[in-house]
Formats: sequence, structure tokens, C-alpha cells
Amino acid sequence: MSLLQSIDSPADLKKLPIERLPELAEEIRNYIIGVVAQNGGHLASNLGVVELTIAIHYVFNLPTDRLIFDVGHQCYTHKILTGRREDFVRIRTRNGPSGFTKRSESEYDSFGAGHASTSIPAALGMALARDLSGKNHKVIAVIGDGSCTGGLTYEGLNQAGGMGRDMLIILNDNTMSISKNVGALSKYLTDIITDENYNKLKADIWNLTEKLPQKDKLRRTIAQAQEFIKGILVPGQIFERLGFRYFGPIDGHDIPLLIKTLNNIKDLHRPLLLHVLTKKGKGYSFAEDAPTHFHGVGAFDKQTGLSSSLKKTLPYTNVFGETLTSLAQDNDKICAITAAMTTGTGLTQFAHKFPQRFFDVGIAEQLGTMVSAALAAEGYRPFFAVYSTFLQRGYDQVVHDVALQKLPVVFCIDRAGVVGEDGSTHHGAFDIPYLMHIPNMTITAPKDGGEFRRLMVTAAGFTAGPFAIRYPRADIPENALGHELDELPYGVWEKLREGDDIAILAVGSMVYPAWKAADILDKDGIHATVVNCRFLKPFDKIMLDEILSKHRCIITIEEGAVYGGFGYYINAYVQENDFDNRKIKNLGLPDQFMTHDSRDNILAELGLNAEGIADSTLRFFESQKKSAKRTRKN
Amino acid sequence: MSLLQSIDSPADLKKLPIERLPELAEEIRNYIIGVVAQNGGHLASNLGVVELTIAIHYVFNLPTDRLIFDVGHQCYTHKILTGRREDFVRIRTRNGPSGFTKRSESEYDSFGAGHASTSIPAALGMALARDLSGKNHKVIAVIGDGSCTGGLTYEGLNQAGGMGRDMLIILNDNTMSISKNVGALSKYLTDIITDENYNKLKADIWNLTEKLPQKDKLRRTIAQAQEFIKGILVPGQIFERLGFRYFGPIDGHDIPLLIKTLNNIKDLHRPLLLHVLTKKGKGYSFAEDAPTHFHGVGAFDKQTGLSSSLKKTLPYTNVFGETLTSLAQDNDKICAITAAMTTGTGLTQFAHKFPQRFFDVGIAEQLGTMVSAALAAEGYRPFFAVYSTFLQRGYDQVVHDVALQKLPVVFCIDRAGVVGEDGSTHHGAFDIPYLMHIPNMTITAPKDGGEFRRLMVTAAGFTAGPFAIRYPRADIPENALGHELDELPYGVWEKLREGDDIAILAVGSMVYPAWKAADILDKDGIHATVVNCRFLKPFDKIMLDEILSKHRCIITIEEGAVYGGFGYYINAYVQENDFDNRKIKNLGLPDQFMTHDSRDNILAELGLNAEGIADSTLRFFESQKKSAKRTRKN
Repeated sequence: MSLLQSIDSPADLKKLPIERLPELAEEIRNYIIGVVAQNGGHLASNLGVVELTIAIHYVFNLPTDRLIFDVGHQCYTHKILTGRREDFVRIRTRNGPSGFTKRSESEYDSFGAGHASTSIPAALGMALARDLSGKNHKVIAVIGDGSCTGGLTYEGLNQAGGMGRDMLIILNDNTMSISKNVGALSKYLTDIITDENYNKLKADIWNLTEKLPQKDKLRRTIAQAQEFIKGILVPGQIFERLGFRYFGPIDGHDIPLLIKTLNNIKDLHRPLLLHVLTKKGKGYSFAEDAPTHFHGVGAFDKQTGLSSSLKKTLPYTNVFGETLTSLAQDNDKICAITAAMTTGTGLTQFAHKFPQRFFDVGIAEQLGTMVSAALAAEGYRPFFAVYSTFLQRGYDQVVHDVALQKLPVVFCIDRAGVVGEDGSTHHGAFDIPYLMHIPNMTITAPKDGGEFRRLMVTAAGFTAGPFAIRYPRADIPENALGHELDELPYGVWEKLREGDDIAILAVGSMVYPAWKAADILDKDGIHATVVNCRFLKPFDKIMLDEILSKHRCIITIEEGAVYGGFGYYINAYVQENDFDNRKIKNLGLPDQFMTHDSRDNILAELGLNAEGIADSTLRFFESQKKSAKRTRKN
Repeated sequence: MSLLQSIDSPADLKKLPIERLPELAEEIRNYIIGVVAQNGGHLASNLGVVELTIAIHYVFNLPTDRLIFDVGHQCYTHKILTGRREDFVRIRTRNGPSGFTKRSESEYDSFGAGHASTSIPAALGMALARDLSGKNHKVIAVIGDGSCTGGLTYEGLNQAGGMGRDMLIILNDNTMSISKNVGALSKYLTDIITDENYNKLKADIWNLTEKLPQKDKLRRTIAQAQEFIKGILVPGQIFERLGFRYFGPIDGHDIPLLIKTLNNIKDLHRPLLLHVLTKKGKGYSFAEDAPTHFHGVGAFDKQTGLSSSLKKTLPYTNVFGETLTSLAQDNDKICAITAAMTTGTGLTQFAHKFPQRFFDVGIAEQLGTMVSAALAAEGYRPFFAVYSTFLQRGYDQVVHDVALQKLPVVFCIDRAGVVGEDGSTHHGAFDIPYLMHIPNMTITAPKDGGEFRRLMVTAAGFTAGPFAIRYPRADIPENALGHELDELPYGVWEKLREGDDIAILAVGSMVYPAWKAADILDKDGIHATVVNCRFLKPFDKIMLDEILSKHRCIITIEEGAVYGGFGYYINAYVQENDFDNRKIKNLGLPDQFMTHDSRDNILAELGLNAEGIADSTLRFFESQKKSAKRTRKN
């Protein structure tokens, strides 16, 4: 790594002659492959932009010029070139850099990201700020074609084009979202790339008219109508029509060409779009061949491309996919909707088996929610599989289109809770708080795989309104599915054990840890009732009344924000219903954005595992015993 | 009204000969003007689509065919033609029809609306459902050019074009959002309308080539490259590129032409876009001249167009606009952002005075939040003025882009609480629940105009993170602004009066009613402490501790959903901090979507006015006295 080791900042990069940059790219590529093989991470997208990132830093002057990566998962080369070369070996680990751009991490990260389609809007805002300040630095957004399915991208393009500010959008076109990209724009981009007619046509017209007596008049007519001529002579018509000057497509792995092109266009002070073609996974054959698998990947063997751990466990995601496929076999109203996460949400099998009832709407959770709403309005039973953090983007549609109209959409909310290494932008901390207050919602969380399947059956048969099932980024506990595939009684909790001293009301992924905590507590002489609160809304008032009548001390626990969470609704119920003197402690995620680390580490640190729950319960119980004594004495 | 009175359903409409439809249109137009002059409502947009709506019902067969109006505020003619002619006089009143389409109101309302940009996504979902069912009815979306600034529209267009389903989008182009429309697409639409070159060019090329010896070869070359020729011969290139067959533009007030065109294209089974030109306010000169004023309007005099009530009161919206303009005079970092609501949020004066620092991003709350975030990241102090119900669409950006990055965006959340006649889709019931759980947020609500101004000053000087100020669709109480324009101490509440019996913790618009309730209660011998909880997050723990140490009974009250609201955070604090035996009652909006009616009526019915609060307090206090006695006896 001789070249790379000399680079501590973009200034060092600029000292290299252009001829040596391909060599540097190879070093960076190898470095990335090595580190991701160890730590896991976003491989294919990062390998695709090594040359592009080098060229950008070679031509522009960061951090004075602003560079914004869409999603931010393709920032590895950028981090390596901007003073984080050595830290990079610890990427996505607790004390290492984030796997995404992050303002608090470096001044070179102009704007943080994690969710898709924010780069053009952020670039527009930064261009507006620059113009207000009377400065003249460049603002550059790098966005993949996958992110162009999100409406936020269009909102940004439309206004940026309308406002005419100086900004450069680099469209990194690899024809992929995480899976194959979808939508008309994607087809259009492919047309630009594959259609050689336009050059031929341009030549033909010119050649034909050359020989004609009236050629000048004809050519003048054509020239006078420049706007229309663009339709013939220039690809990228859509972008031109939206107010951008379009350049490309050019090879995104050809560093000299990239540098030449960027230098050529950088002094045009208006909205520019440079269309760059790259290959996801470039330079690592396993990733080139399976870019979806290597989009975001766990640790793997660099030589073979095989996953390091051959787990025998079963993630909730897989249980979801298999169960939905089996339900759809018997119920032809069941549809599956995904927002560009076919594999990530476990729908590969369903998509293969029921292509007519499978809809990938692109990275567009608003649209996913709307299409689900409309399918439900027409009598279908849509299951929208979506990560907790991404459904945030469909919040208004959940309220305004689904819940208000009482449409029976099933929201299968994956990655609810702590997601681990993807960190602060991706934790599913808020779905309980952002759904619980919405009228007409049913919200549930299974304790294990068998119950998950039964909740799915229950949801499939429920027609009175939307039905949410939240589940963690985890394997199912006990690694067993159970066999009953019948409905669960609506709104009914499950008492798992009884004890006299304290009651633990646990939600979803926290049920088994709470159950185990009760065993630990037994040894301390504290005997806990443990309830599986599988229905968060509506909750089981009969069982809750029973629990409250038998217990003075209650703990609620959920893998979600405490603020506005399930526990708050229990507190309110207790207040509302004159259960005086009940003491409740709400456990869950704190009121802060959590960093990246393994899910197990984060949960342990927050006391959200069996030992932590036992410990919190013990301390709570002891403190209440003391205060009860105090009260009696006074 | 001889023609109109014969029409109880679209079947009756179809009995009329085409020649008589313009006469019907005039009757409907007059009817609408008369009713809206009485009830208030969306006038200009409805007058613009009278002919279009008649033509659609004349050609298609509802409710078998599906018709979806974007936003839904232009549905008056549709309601009049579909069995609600007589009910229409009570539109927007408690027992009358909603001012928007509503599935629960009529089978002719295929999909409800209220927020913008949902029609194409809903139409896509309905087309998918139709195809799954093997049926062949049409699905039609009617969308204004204003709604085309929303990303959700693009998400729908992009996927619908990609999927190629049979659906018809009617683009109702009046060059207006509520105010003048913005963005590149809007300019592009204007180009289509105004540019006469394309027809001339088409003719020129044909004429020129006619005379040439090589004309066949030339024309063949042109024909072979059809995709590119479209760029010359057909406007609507963008829509064609997105997979839609484009037709138009045609005159949207010419009923025979509309009917002929719809009949011509209705059997093309693929994505179609018909571009129709209409005039907002058509046929009522006052509305034609001032379409922004007559977009949504209160009662007015039909003869003069003047508002019926000449109020001398001062809405919060106006206080906002005037204060921001005055703050911006002294602080050149202050910017104002609106999502197509310049007038509605009170920013007209600001826009006029500081055009460089005023940004209308179109109907695109996601973009508004993002642009604000980026401006804040660059050191500016953006004030994003937005209605509570519409900020729902920016929820993910508030979490992921603003709060996570601790960017000092000021959210001025207008219409927080009950909005009145616009009804269920527009009530601002959820902003407290959807913001309180977000880390790093400051959330405030002023009790009156003077405090509002001081909170704005406080917000302008606050750099540690986002700062929200919520205020109602109401006049400021007491009609006085106060004079101090200094900062309020951060996080500090205000005790308005002290009493021994009970404490009322009131938020924003509920402070004055609670204060008055305390006067009423005095007469019943119950003496209440009233606290103005102007900081919802963080709240004033010092004052709260003091209140809790002096009071056993506490009432919280807010003009927002009780579920997940401010009161829930007080409950949790009490539980967390060992204030045993405190009894808390949370007042606010119920866990249901509320209908349309005047704001005063709705608040009164929910007990959220001085009398209602006094009544609830009295009953709560009495019940607690009894239960305290019971407890003592046991």
C-alpha cells in the first residue's frame, strides 16, 4: 500500500499525477475488500465508486466545496481519503467510523445520510446558503439510480432546476437499487445507455441535409427550434426539461476521463447533471456476480466470498417470507409490497412464486403505503414489508390514507428496535411512538417465531383496519416455529408465569429476556409475573386489570423508545383507572440517537437483556420496598 | 335550476344531450358560488373543474370506473352529480358532506383525500387490484399541476409508467398551486402551452422535405427514430419518457372537446396522461382575479366578493408573519421556508420584503424540511412555516436529517389542534405525539400573541438543535401583542395563579381557557393553580416538582391527541420520580379522527373550552375527594 499510505488528506491526493491514480484505486479497492470481509458492511456500492470518489477529490476542494453522498453507504473511499484511512479498519465497530457519512465525524462529511434520496434536497439547501453568503464554492451530490425512485429526489430536482442554482449532481448509474432497479426512469436511463441510434440519427440528418439544395433553410429551421432538437441530439432529455444541463453517460471507472469531464464542466454555474456508469462490486468478482448479496454483507472469506458464519438460526425476516408465501397459497387476496427491499425483507421466495401479487415500488415508502392502501380499498390483503426506520417516511400516508380510511393494510415492520452496525440513522427506535397515537391502528409484536406466524394469520383475517406487526433484526428465540397456524385471539395477552412480588409487562423481543430475568430473580427470592404483551394496541384490559389488582410494582419493557412508547400507555391507563399506589418503571431505549455497535452490545449496555432486566427489576423492587416502608412509617 | 334538479346520479347526466351540458355547467357554477358564499370553502379550484367533472361523468361509468381527485378539494361538482346535490348546501358543516372526497360518504368517492399528491399512487394501486381481479374498468386520477411538485406524485408516475398498467391521469393545469406554482416542471408545462413552435416546426419539416428528391429516405430516417422524433412532434416529452402516452393540451372548459377526447382515448389500455388547461375561479370574476384568495375562503358576499365578516381580531398566522419579518430585519441569517403556503402561513410580507431569503419549495414538506436542514447546517436560521397536518409528511426528515444532526431549524407549526371545517384530514392532532419522542427536539407552544413573539425570538437565538413552536388556527387571545421582544428563559414554565385544591398544567391554546376555568371553579369553592407549560420538551422540572409537592390532583390539557401527548410525559415523570398518590387526568383530543365542524363547536363538544375544563376539573376533583375518603376509611 505504498501510494495509499502517503495520503492523509485530499491535498496529498492532488500531489499524485493522474497516471498513478488507477494504481491508488486498486490499493483502495483491496483495502476496502479486506476490511469489509472482516467487519461486514456495504461492499458492492463502495467498490463501484472508488474511481469516481478519487476523481471528485482530485478536481474539487473539500471541505470548502460541499460533497453529499446519497444514502452515504458508498462513502468508504471518501473516508479513506479524508484523514480516516487508519480508522477505517474499525468501521462500523463501536469506536470506529460510521458506515455512513456523519457531520459529527469529519468536516469532510458535508451532510450526514443513511436514508435514501436526501442528497439533492440537501445540496439545494447548501447552494441556497452559499448564494446568500455571496460565496462561490461548488455543491456536489452523488446519487445512485436506485435513489432516483424516491420522490424526495424529484422534489429536489424539480426545485433545483426551477431555481437554477449552481450545483452538480453526479448520477451514479449502476442499473441497481439493492436489487435490480424498477420504474420508468430506470428504463429511460437504460435507453440512454443502450440506444446508439441517437448518434447515428444525428449524423444521418446532417449527412442527408448536406447534399440538399435547401440544406441551409432546413438546418436553420432545426436550429431555431433548439428545445426540440435536444430531443434528437442529446440524451438526458428529462433532466434537461427539469432545468439541468445533462452530460454523459461516461465510464465511471475511467479516472482520466472523469477528471477531464469534471474539470470541463465545473465552471458552468448552473444546475448540472453528470451521468456516470459504474459497476456495482467492480473489481471483486464475487461482488460483481452477486451485487445484491454484497450490497450489505456480514463478514466473509476474501478468497472464496463465502460468509464467515454458517448460522443454523432463523431470522424473523425469513419466517416472515416463508409464512407469507404459505398464506398466499391459500388466500389469493394476499399481496406483498416492498420498497426496494425484496431480499432484505425476506420476499425473494414470494416474488418468485407469486410474481403477479408481488410489487416492488422502488425506494419509495410513501408509495408503498399508498399502493397498499389502494389494494386494501379494493378488497386485497396487502402485506407491506418495511423496516421500522424506513416506514418513518410513510408516516403521513399511514395516518391520512390508511388509518383514517380504516383500510386493512398489514404493516410487517422488520428491524424494529436496535439494528446494530448500521447505527444511528437505521435503528428502529420510533415505530411504537409514531404508530400508537394513530386512531384505528392495531399494533402487535410477537415473542417468537411461532407467535409471529400466528399473528400473520390473525392479520390476514382482520378487516377492520390497519394491522402492524413489529419484529427485531434477530433470530427467533428457541429456534422453533411451533406448528399451530391458527389465529390468536384479538387483543389478548399471554401470561407466561406468575409471581407475587412484581409484574413484568414485556413487548415482543423483550419477552424471552424478561422471562429469563424472572428465573434469575427467583434465585434472589423475588418472584415475578411475566406477561407477553403481544397486542400493544388495543391492549388486554382484562389481563391488565388482573395484573394491577395483584401487583403494586410493575415494569414495562420494550425494544423501542421509552418516550411515547408502550409503557407510557400503561402509565396512562393506571392513572385513568384509579389504581392508586401502583409503581411503574418503563424500560426501553433512551431519549437519544444511539450509535453503531452490535445489537447485542447495545442491548446489553442499555440493560435490555436477561441480566440487565433482572438487575433493573431487583433495584426497582428494593427501592419500592424501602419507600413503601417509609410511607408506612410516616 | 331546471337542468340540475333532474340529476340525481350520473345516469341522469348521461340522458342529457351534449349541447345542453354547458347550460348545466353554468347552473352548477352558480350553485357552487352561492353555497360557498354562505359556508366558505374551496371556491377557485372547484369553479375550474366544473366542465371537466361533467365530461368525466358523461364518458365514464362510476362507481365501476374509479375516479380519484388529488387533494379532493375540487370535488364539489362531483358531489353534486353523484346524489349529494341537496346535501351540498350543508357542505363543511357538521351534518353536511365533507369538503373533500370521503369513502365513507359515497361509493362514488373511490378514494378519500385531503393531502396532496396521493391520487396517482392510489390510482396505481387500484389499477393493480383491477388487473389481479381480471376486471377491465378504468381508473382515473385528476391532479392539479400544484400537486405535481410533491414527490409522491413522481413516485406514482415513475412506477405506473414502468409497470405499464391501464390508467388515465388527467393533469388539470391552471399554472397555480394555491399561489403561483413553482419548480422546473411547472415551467415546462408553461412551455408546452405557450410554445407554438412545435406545430410550426412539424409542418416546416414536412413541407421542406416534400420538395426534396430524397424526401422518402429522409422521412424514413426520421420515422425509424420515433423515440427521438417525439421530442420534436409531441409535447409532454417528460411524461412520454416516464412511460405515459401524452395527449393535449386541450381546453378544459370546452365540454364537447373534453368528451370527444376522453372517448377517443378511453380504450387505450396503457398509462395515459391527458393535459387539460383550466382557469382557477372560472366564471366568477372575483375568483378569476384573485384565485389565491378564493382558493379556500370564508363566507363572502356573492355580489361584491367581499368577506362577510370584517374581523378586527388577529390570527396567530399574522403574528407569525409580522414577527418574522421584523426579526429578519435585524438578523440576516433568518430565512423563511414554505411548502406552497405563502399566504396560508402568513409569509406574504416576508416574501415581498426579503425575496432572497424566502423559499417556496412547492407542495413538498419533505423538501421543505431538507432545505431547512441544509440552510441550518450552513449557519442560517431557517423558519419553516408549516401546518401541523402537513408536517406529518416531513416526519422522517425531522428525525433523520434535522434532529439526528442537531440542526437548528425552527418549525413554526400552524393549525396545531382542531382546524374546523376542513375536517378529518386536516386536524393538527398529532404533532405533539410525533415530535415529543424525537431526541434533541425543543417543543414549545405560546399561550398568546406576546408569548408567541418571545418564543420566536428565543428560537432565533437557539443553536443547539431544532426548535418547534406550535400554535392554533385561531386569533390570539386578548387581542394584544405585548411589547417585550426579549428571549424567554429556556425550558421555564409560567405559573399564572395559585390555588390549593388542584393544579392545571395547560399547553398553548388551552392556557387561557384553563385560566378562565379556574375563575369559574373559584365560584364552586375549588381553587386551582394554573401553569402555562410553554415548553413541552424539555419541561420545567423545577416548577413541576413544586407543583407535585403541593398538589395531589393534577390535570393536563392540550389541543392535541391525548394518546402520546404532553400529558403522557407528565404521567411518566410522576411515575419515575416517586410522587406517590398523585392523581393525574389527561385532557385533549380523543383517539379518533374528528369530523368537520367549526373549531369552537368541536372544542366545546370535547370539553376543551373554559366551561368544559371547569366541568371536568370539578368532576375529577370530586371523584378524587371521594376516593381519598374511601382510601382513608379502608
